[in-house]
Amino acid sequence: MSPASVNDNEVDIVIGAFRSDLTSFMEEWRPIFSRFHLIVVKDPDVKEVKIPEGFDVRVYTESDIVKVVGSSKASLFSGYSSRYFGYLVSNKKYIISIDDDCSPAKTKDGDLVDIVAYHLNNLKTPATPFFFNTLYDPYQKGSDFVRGYPFSLRSGVPCALSCGLWLNLADYDAPTQALKPDMRNTRYVDAVLTVPLKSMMPMSGVNIAFDRELVGPAMLPALKLVKEGKVRWETMEDVWCGLVVKTVCDHLKLGVKSGIPYVWRNEKGSAIDSLKKEWEGVKLMEDAVPFFETLRLSRSSVTAEDCVVEIAAAVKERLGSTHAVFVSAAEAMVEWVKLWKAVRSLDH
Amino acid sequence: MSPASVNDNEVDIVIGAFRSDLTSFMEEWRPIFSRFHLIVVKDPDVKEVKIPEGFDVRVYTESDIVKVVGSSKASLFSGYSSRYFGYLVSNKKYIISIDDDCSPAKTKDGDLVDIVAYHLNNLKTPATPFFFNTLYDPYQKGSDFVRGYPFSLRSGVPCALSCGLWLNLADYDAPTQALKPDMRNTRYVDAVLTVPLKSMMPMSGVNIAFDRELVGPAMLPALKLVKEGKVRWETMEDVWCGLVVKTVCDHLKLGVKSGIPYVWRNEKGSAIDSLKKEWEGVKLMEDAVPFFETLRLSRSSVTAEDCVVEIAAAVKERLGSTHAVFVSAAEAMVEWVKLWKAVRSLDH
Repeated sequence: MSPASVNDNEVDIVIGAFRSDLTSFMEEWRPIFSRFHLIVVKDPDVKEVKIPEGFDVRVYTESDIVKVVGSSKASLFSGYSSRYFGYLVSNKKYIISIDDDCSPAKTKDGDLVDIVAYHLNNLKTPATPFFFNTLYDPYQKGSDFVRGYPFSLRSGVPCALSCGLWLNLADYDAPTQALKPDMRNTRYVDAVLTVPLKSMMPMSGVNIAFDRELVGPAMLPALKLVKEGKVRWETMEDVWCGLVVKTVCDHLKLGVKSGIPYVWRNEKGSAIDSLKKEWEGVKLMEDAVPFFETLRLSRSSVTAEDCVVEIAAAVKERLGSTHAVFVSAAEAMVEWVKLWKAVRSLDH
Repeated sequence: MSPASVNDNEVDIVIGAFRSDLTSFMEEWRPIFSRFHLIVVKDPDVKEVKIPEGFDVRVYTESDIVKVVGSSKASLFSGYSSRYFGYLVSNKKYIISIDDDCSPAKTKDGDLVDIVAYHLNNLKTPATPFFFNTLYDPYQKGSDFVRGYPFSLRSGVPCALSCGLWLNLADYDAPTQALKPDMRNTRYVDAVLTVPLKSMMPMSGVNIAFDRELVGPAMLPALKLVKEGKVRWETMEDVWCGLVVKTVCDHLKLGVKSGIPYVWRNEKGSAIDSLKKEWEGVKLMEDAVPFFETLRLSRSSVTAEDCVVEIAAAVKERLGSTHAVFVSAAEAMVEWVKLWKAVRSLDH
């Protein structure tokens, strides 16, 4: 994977800072990140953020957030949601988003996996959601379309979202993690594929990249559990965001890829402690998934903003009565689109 | 992958013999195949089949075929379609089907990939077509469901079909092969996944396994091109069969998996020669794929036989006017179901 074709000016790397000393994290990533502009968004609970020299970085603090969105809406961007503020203020075409508890994965030869190059390769080559290619992403080097793949579908559609994976600690929920405390993900699956049309998938926000111009307005913080903590397996916000953005991509004829690149995810939190909390999120998915699977957007929704507003209205109408958290999510989605438009209007 | 849980009596390995000397093929596969019952179906153009000693093998010749299906229908089972006769006469639960130009693939440690153990593991563990698991098949050792996967969908559905892949010569069509004559598939993707509901995929018949009791009647020879030869990239019959069986699986709430195990596919034929022929198959897919993608079967179709008959009627009605080959395919499908039932009635 050669990063040669990457234009430094079209990429922002967004990092939500949940701890004050990012030195070791930044040093590990230096060979990969130092070329790019970094947006670090400080969680309001963190006092100060320590970042080593030699990076082109802008750190956003609570007061920056208040300045842009107002004090009443600043709470939208706490905890894992802080990264979404980075999405809001970026003006680059592509955003790479990475959690601060990840290290670069290593290839078999010991080289660092350059997630920027991989993600951009995923985003800059077409996605193929309308027919399944058994040879995985046909646009990866060394691959192609399998015999029988209709030629009319081979040009594909623009890829809007690239979802990477994790080695070591895989993305399990707390019950799975608690049941299998010693399970580690050691299987490096050297593939990426387009998630087919109408197939819903749960996105993780730990290691993703997206085309901000295409789907930025759909990459939103909305569904937050009352007791949501700061360990990834307790959160639902990125899973919900994934259902929203996949629905938007399906409607707008855009693609979502899942697979490489991997990051190495380090230990964090206790699954047993998490298990003691109420498993609100698990129950919510039982209602959310059938909703998204059957949702069809209207032809009048032609932008990501339109789609999000239409989805929000449907969430309120069809899910609102089952749980109050869906009502809040719907409101947050509408709010997000307003913010998105307001910030964009400041740019021009 | 341990073959410990495999019961020898529930497996038939079906091999269509397109050359007279299978000695080297059988010797290569001996460590894997010698435990199982083999069905070898001799292509009528091949004079005699040479098979080394030490195998539990039954060779079916043209006269056997005529005895079972009658002389008027024996032509259904020539060329690549000979294997389907093996599917017809098997009475085992699982069928593994492998082309005689494949060798066992090797793992990184140099061990032979035991395709029987892998395929049976795929078939004996549930498939998950209703929601996409970004961690691939959650039932593989070392994997599980990703955070956010609805618990109500985690029990999955029975897996009816396991589609393996090829190393060395990947499953490209003749134009692709001719454009990239030196391209070889060297990427071993260590994963298998469920092809999502309503996502259509082109099956290759080279390296597959299926649950004969669940979908045997849908594993059929039907769409044969006039100029179809004996090199895989010229054939459409398995691709069409894949569209049929995926439609049946979607309707009956069964799953299809794609991925490991790999076989090593050896060189065969000239892509340039193939290119000189008319590209009928390529054009057919442009009509076939939209047809299958929009086809919805009725609730009254509750078995694979019912589904095939209903699909055949729809093919005749909706595709018949576009190309005569579809009319023949529809007729062959109905014929196949009749044969299937007739052979079954002899069993009991």
